[in-house]
Amino acid sequence: MYLVDALHLRILRLLRDEGAVSRAELGDRLELTRPRLLAEVERLITAGLIAEAGMAASRGGRRSTLVEIHPRLRFAAVDLGASSIDIEVVNGRLEPVATYREAADIRSGPKVILQRVNELLAKARIDGAYERLDAVGIGVPGPVSFRDGVPVSPPIMPGWDRYPVRELLAREHSCPAVVDNDVNIMAIGERHGGVAHSVDDFLFVKIGTGIGCGIHLAGTVFRGVDGCAGDIGHIQVDANGPVCSCGNAGCLEALFSGAALARDALAAARAGESPALAERLAGRLAGGEELTARDVAEGAAEGDVTCIRLIREGGRRVGGVLATLVSFANPSMIVIGGGLAQLGHVLLAEIRSVVYRRSLPLATGNLPVVLSELGGRAGVTGAAVLASDMAFEQAS
Amino acid sequence: MYLVDALHLRILRLLRDEGAVSRAELGDRLELTRPRLLAEVERLITAGLIAEAGMAASRGGRRSTLVEIHPRLRFAAVDLGASSIDIEVVNGRLEPVATYREAADIRSGPKVILQRVNELLAKARIDGAYERLDAVGIGVPGPVSFRDGVPVSPPIMPGWDRYPVRELLAREHSCPAVVDNDVNIMAIGERHGGVAHSVDDFLFVKIGTGIGCGIHLAGTVFRGVDGCAGDIGHIQVDANGPVCSCGNAGCLEALFSGAALARDALAAARAGESPALAERLAGRLAGGEELTARDVAEGAAEGDVTCIRLIREGGRRVGGVLATLVSFANPSMIVIGGGLAQLGHVLLAEIRSVVYRRSLPLATGNLPVVLSELGGRAGVTGAAVLASDMAFEQAS
Repeated sequence: MYLVDALHLRILRLLRDEGAVSRAELGDRLELTRPRLLAEVERLITAGLIAEAGMAASRGGRRSTLVEIHPRLRFAAVDLGASSIDIEVVNGRLEPVATYREAADIRSGPKVILQRVNELLAKARIDGAYERLDAVGIGVPGPVSFRDGVPVSPPIMPGWDRYPVRELLAREHSCPAVVDNDVNIMAIGERHGGVAHSVDDFLFVKIGTGIGCGIHLAGTVFRGVDGCAGDIGHIQVDANGPVCSCGNAGCLEALFSGAALARDALAAARAGESPALAERLAGRLAGGEELTARDVAEGAAEGDVTCIRLIREGGRRVGGVLATLVSFANPSMIVIGGGLAQLGHVLLAEIRSVVYRRSLPLATGNLPVVLSELGGRAGVTGAAVLASDMAFEQAS
Repeated sequence: MYLVDALHLRILRLLRDEGAVSRAELGDRLELTRPRLLAEVERLITAGLIAEAGMAASRGGRRSTLVEIHPRLRFAAVDLGASSIDIEVVNGRLEPVATYREAADIRSGPKVILQRVNELLAKARIDGAYERLDAVGIGVPGPVSFRDGVPVSPPIMPGWDRYPVRELLAREHSCPAVVDNDVNIMAIGERHGGVAHSVDDFLFVKIGTGIGCGIHLAGTVFRGVDGCAGDIGHIQVDANGPVCSCGNAGCLEALFSGAALARDALAAARAGESPALAERLAGRLAGGEELTARDVAEGAAEGDVTCIRLIREGGRRVGGVLATLVSFANPSMIVIGGGLAQLGHVLLAEIRSVVYRRSLPLATGNLPVVLSELGGRAGVTGAAVLASDMAFEQAS
């Protein structure tokens, strides 16, 4: 059983990730005897999961026919943020065939949000993106019981606690569904098609509205006993720091996150500490008296010392926590993503400096700290990977 | 291949951990068809790994014969500390048949220490503990490349860097050998025969001469990319703290560890802040002007406020780091071991208090923080488990 399962998964993943491959090459790559491989390929063709794709170039002997992931396969990938819905419908190679992005407040509750997700997916079907879905993958901004397919005590998602997200999506679309935390799917996406490609042990740190960490260990996402592993935004970094949305004082994300940076930028502009920020604030229309991470990034690029200081202080906070996590987990890469990744080099340089200075030399001897490559697409990419894995596993 | 390997391992581990079992029960427990099981059992008997052990009690039908791990099997388990050598020779059920413990300075270097290990094992053979060893497992107090079987840049082990420990032990004893970090083997031991029995995700925190953490995730030890995962003793907890042996300031183990506690106890005794410690110091013979963790534990038991304060401050430091690690890894248990575990309830209560207050409620809702059950035997127990696993894996 194990052996057969592992084999069909290995074939499907290889075709998903690399495209059409000849039977001969497939046998070589997976180190299978020819009869074994041919039998399994026939089985997958019969199951409608892979298809013939013409003849391969000659390797000297008889020409081998190409096989590919079946062109009919479709997966839906959904990334729910605190204030956005991102959807991609992808084919079996995880290439997008339809993309939707719109603003939505996660606090509207599961009924409203999931109904909108279903409406967008219905629109995709009408637009011809698919006839039927083979699996749906969805990421949500909070802890998830991966086993049960439900959010668990998610702090910023009122009404979602233990809401049967997986069950409802699976029923609506008559296919397997899988639910995970938003940062976990970003990590999976970055490993599939981004800077962490084929890296087994890495941390994906999302710095956005809040802060979270996707933990990829030994080739798989580590979710923890209650599904809240990586929830590093509420680590206390300053007992005398500002009160956090969680009620504790001095949490990492109360000191540095999209919301914290906007707050600090506004204070600096009003206190006359930053010409760049004051100018931007004055330029806002009445009633829109807000500054964002983008303003700080632009100010820093212009050389505004306060903007640079705000980013450096944030980087130092994040770096301090990451130094601890590096000593603990000894990963081989750290990827920084989320909205505040736009702060770019200044942020990265400060994080690196603290991590390299404060972790064990052995653990940082060869530790890249890099920006996410996929940016805003990391989440949907990971959701598509999860959905296809689920479909492949259940297809046996 | 995979399937066969997994099967023989499952049978051997079950017999190692539970003793004699009938073929019928073995088939039920491993959910195997009778022909499949009988073939594998015959193979393992032929290989000299298991043996017949009489008839089982009747289950109603034909009586089934018992099989057990072969009574001839012997594993050597070695736990090298900063200042001690612990050795057990165990049988196939991991029961000790010979035990040695003596003082030894790890800084004497690998030649001296490993020669002494071999002398003690030779003595065990002469004493009749074994005829030949089936595997040797050894733990060392520093980072280890598990794959290469060598220590890697171990801070307190001069001369040991990349010394071929595994190769030399394997050659000397003509059997497989396995090398791991001392805290990892303690975690493995505690999971095999202690308080973490069959717990898949837990942290084993050793507070002794230094501080380290064994990370048990998804049923296996996580060692990190360079073998230094869990090296939490050098996490900076106070930038203004005392200088650590590693050269940085304010590392966790510079603030709380066997050495740090001895230093703080001596200072308190001399400053007249602790009657209990001053009395103990006065009772020491000339030249032996030292206090130890035991003195502090005794003082605390007598109600000496300074002793209690020293333990609480230490617990607060450790708890602060563990709160971060709990938010990150979301484990299902924390086990406290090592020499300072003798500080007992006062230490544990303070660690618990900080962890419960500062980690996410979801992650601590059901998180026991408990003392090691095996104490000084955790290391050799884990080394024996590793050695037997290695022998079983290579026996196929």
